[in-house]
Formats: sequence, structure tokens, C-alpha cells
Amino acid sequence: MEPVANIYPSVGHLIDPADRWSRQGHQGGVLWLTGLSGSGKSTLATTLEARIFGYGYQTYALDGDNLRHGLNADLGFSPNDRSENIRRVGEVAALLASAGVIVVTAFISPYREDRRTARTAVGEGFREVFLNPGLEVCERRDPKGLYKKARAGQIPEFTGISAPYEEPEKPDVMLDTGVLTCDECVEILADFVDRTFRQI
Amino acid sequence: MEPVANIYPSVGHLIDPADRWSRQGHQGGVLWLTGLSGSGKSTLATTLEARIFGYGYQTYALDGDNLRHGLNADLGFSPNDRSENIRRVGEVAALLASAGVIVVTAFISPYREDRRTARTAVGEGFREVFLNPGLEVCERRDPKGLYKKARAGQIPEFTGISAPYEEPEKPDVMLDTGVLTCDECVEILADFVDRTFRQI
Repeated sequence: MEPVANIYPSVGHLIDPADRWSRQGHQGGVLWLTGLSGSGKSTLATTLEARIFGYGYQTYALDGDNLRHGLNADLGFSPNDRSENIRRVGEVAALLASAGVIVVTAFISPYREDRRTARTAVGEGFREVFLNPGLEVCERRDPKGLYKKARAGQIPEFTGISAPYEEPEKPDVMLDTGVLTCDECVEILADFVDRTFRQI
Repeated sequence: MEPVANIYPSVGHLIDPADRWSRQGHQGGVLWLTGLSGSGKSTLATTLEARIFGYGYQTYALDGDNLRHGLNADLGFSPNDRSENIRRVGEVAALLASAGVIVVTAFISPYREDRRTARTAVGEGFREVFLNPGLEVCERRDPKGLYKKARAGQIPEFTGISAPYEEPEKPDVMLDTGVLTCDECVEILADFVDRTFRQI
């Protein structure tokens, strides 16, 4: 790594994060949704975003769609590119959280090490949410037909089938999205956001 | 490029941007500060951020410091890496603006093509602000001693000395920061923000 510090010295923000928080009534932070394909991450993220926006939060959902077509359009699906994808998601989530936003990210993010990197980038406002309906449920749903293709060998290194998913060891929240409805999950997470990020 | 659309379908946000804007009283957008090293970009960006935050705006300054040490820590200073740096800044600014934030970016961004890419990523909320005190003033100030090193050949491809700076052809705002004080520039830009992004 080149010694960038010399060329880009710290200017720093003149706004105290606490001033952002007190004005808007909540801290910035990240709800990091992780789970297999078909576990309901993107649907839950955008539904939760709309719900807590309605409750007065500054909030923004990040998923593969708004990153893979923009910031991460240069990345493919090799193991290295997947890690770099998650690294950048973590850094972008950290910037948004630093601006006072409650970020809801929806990425499979199968590796513990990658999620740890994201946690480090974000800092204390990071919360891990494990959507865990189990592989069987995800594969039975298979809304995009990806599991079928993966079983047929048409998609290499598919998480849960031919590539590992490393379950969170101590998630802040675990939701069995095979049993709970999306609305029930939203209720649970909105309540969690209130308890975690609301400034009294 | 792999066909990512198939794997990452568009879920999309359920919140209409207009709802974000009307609640907070302003649109999201980007003030893209461009100019030579020493033209005052970072100082102006963070001072402006604090000022318009005080006026009630959601705002966030992005400069080399908060990106080169995080999201863009993998990039060096080769021409390709510089372009990629600016491309990512544009995409991150676009995400923040989409979340309703007035982003103030402070990067030399010497190439028209790179600034055009950023403009495309952000869309209609993009405004180009050219800080133009002239090379002579920047070099005389030389707050970090970089021009001296560049003249001595110790920094290769230094913008304005041994690498080109392509001036904006039609900047939305041009400020002679060799004549205007930082406070005067902040006044001008805060007024510009009010006229451009405020929702009545």
C-alpha cells in the first residue's frame, strides 16, 4: 500500500456525530442482513426501509441491485470478487451510517471473515441479522430458479449447494423466515431499531 | 461483464424520493468540487458541510481522507487507479444523494471524462463547482509541500505540473479561491444550495 496519508491528510468533519443524531432523533447504524439465497433478505430490507422511514428514520436499503449495477459493476463472482463486493458494501454502509443513516444491507455475505471486515468498517453501530429459514425452505421456494440451476451444475460455487455458508455464531437477531411472515420480521426489526438506535 | 441482472433482480426502493425530499425540506444532490491541489477543496467542503448542516440540511462531505483509507484503500495513484477512485466516489455520492443527502465532494478529479462519469452516476442532482485560483496561487501556497516535490521530480504525474488538469468547460459555479476567502465561498455555495435543492 502506498503511503496515502501524506498526500491525503485528515481534514475531518466539523460536525459532531452526536449533533446529527440529536437533530434527527436517532443514531446512524447498519442492520447487516445475511442468509442464503431465497431467505428473504432483499424483500425484508426494502419493506423495513419503508416502515422505519414512516417512523421518522433516515434510512436506506442497499442490495445487489443498487450496488452490482453501479459501484460494484466491475466485479464478477469469483471468490476474490465476492469478498471485494462485500468489503465495498461494508465501506459504503459505514459512510452512510456516518452521515446518520440507518442502513439495511441485503447480501448473502457467506463468509465470517467478510462480515467481520464490514463490522470493523462500520464500528459500534453494526448489527448482524441472520435470516435462517434453513436450506430446505430456500431451495423449495427457489423464486429465481437458481437452486435448480445450481443442482444441475449450471451455476458453479452456489452458496449452500456447492459453496459454503458460514452461519453467524452470535447474530444480534436471528429470524426464521420460513415460519415468520415478512410483516412479522419487519415488526421485530423495527422494534429492534427503536431499542438500538433511537435517541431519547 | 457477467449477466448480473439475472442473479440480482431489481427489487427497488419502496420509498418515493419525493417523500424523502418533502419530509426533510430539500432534495438530495451532489456539489462536485474540482480543482488543483491547494485550491481549497477539502477545507471548503468540510466548512460548507458544517454551515448547511446548521441550516437544516442532511449533508456529508467526501474527500480523499474518508475514502482513500476505506473504500478506496486498495487503489494507488496510477492513471487507471485514479480513474477508478473517481468512479467510485461518483457512485458513492450517487447513493448518498439517493438517500436524500447533499454530498460535497473534494477531489482534484482532473479528467473531464471521469467527471462526466460521476455526473452520469448521480443524474440530475449533480452540480460541478470549479475552484480556480490558478496554478500560480496553488503552487505558491503549497501547504503540503507537494508542488516543491513535484518540481523536483519526486512525485511523478502530479496534476498541474507533470499531469494535465482538464478545466471544466461549463461549471455550474466557478470560484476564484485566490481572491475569495473560504467564508465568502461558503456563503456563495450555501446560497447556491438553497436555490438549487431547497423544496419550497
